[in-house]
Amino acid sequence: MKSLEEKTIAKEQIFSGKVIDLYVEDVELPNGKTSKREIVKHPGAVAILAVTDEGKIIMVKQFRKPLERTIVEIPAGKLEKGEEPEYTALRELEEETGYTAKKLTKITAFYTSPGFADEIVHVFLAEELSVLEEKRELDEDEFVEVMEVTLEDALKLVESREVYDAKTAFAIQYLQLKEALQAQK
Amino acid sequence: MKSLEEKTIAKEQIFSGKVIDLYVEDVELPNGKTSKREIVKHPGAVAILAVTDEGKIIMVKQFRKPLERTIVEIPAGKLEKGEEPEYTALRELEEETGYTAKKLTKITAFYTSPGFADEIVHVFLAEELSVLEEKRELDEDEFVEVMEVTLEDALKLVESREVYDAKTAFAIQYLQLKEALQAQK
Repeated sequence: MKSLEEKTIAKEQIFSGKVIDLYVEDVELPNGKTSKREIVKHPGAVAILAVTDEGKIIMVKQFRKPLERTIVEIPAGKLEKGEEPEYTALRELEEETGYTAKKLTKITAFYTSPGFADEIVHVFLAEELSVLEEKRELDEDEFVEVMEVTLEDALKLVESREVYDAKTAFAIQYLQLKEALQAQK
Repeated sequence: MKSLEEKTIAKEQIFSGKVIDLYVEDVELPNGKTSKREIVKHPGAVAILAVTDEGKIIMVKQFRKPLERTIVEIPAGKLEKGEEPEYTALRELEEETGYTAKKLTKITAFYTSPGFADEIVHVFLAEELSVLEEKRELDEDEFVEVMEVTLEDALKLVESREVYDAKTAFAIQYLQLKEALQAQK
């Protein structure tokens, strides 16, 4: 098998921000020619599919400036430097929703946009939830509204495009699959 | 319900590239304070879950510079200006895999990283496949290796992290769900 690898010839940092950095790299292609790659560096993130004992999903409504609209997502947040994803997941669940979880299980992880970004999202299932007595503070530029929805409601939110992002679409489909596999037994 | 909206106060273009543009916006938060948002603009993309009559999935192995590694994905590509997603989907399937499809069905669409990017991916199911007699040309900086895998193989590729991106994880789970729902009948 021939290698598909692209070797870096030159690398320029265009931007360094509070969330992302941007680089442009000159690369040598497998056929020896050269091209440019635009690369966004991101610290990585976690997303939490939190399900109550009654089977309701905890979701957050949030304005997303890149989309210029409000959408409904599962709770999520960026990894801080040196943080283990499990720790971040529990922190973000607590900050965004006021719930905590006794049971946290890794479902999967995936890159969101491998063509131009290195962002990875670690997805967790949070169960055995309880309401925190003392609410944790959100980041000072974060504003969310917490919702509890059934799987049926969640599917309606997908249909009406109120749920409109990859991690949440994946998480809802995950619950659908779980339910379908249980029904088979 | 109070509005969660963030109003733009100022907007600066940092970068204009061949794939993405980058902006930094000063926004007014719902509480009247201000913050900065880093926003990547992307033309949008399509992804194609192409399944042969024998139930095999057509996948492509591709080096992804942002990840510095080769991963296996479902065929995908950027929308060109003014292109309908259906058209792009068929074009990308033909260019990347050498297959064409008689039947193309929209499965869903989702934003990949709503926190910092406006990229949307339109996901299609392609069926009734046949091999093109004349192969179409790939973009000159694109190198891929075509694979045909069973759903079982695809799940192994997820397990071994050779499949490692959101759209492909979603697409494989979609087929799993379809199979589970059919088994219920």
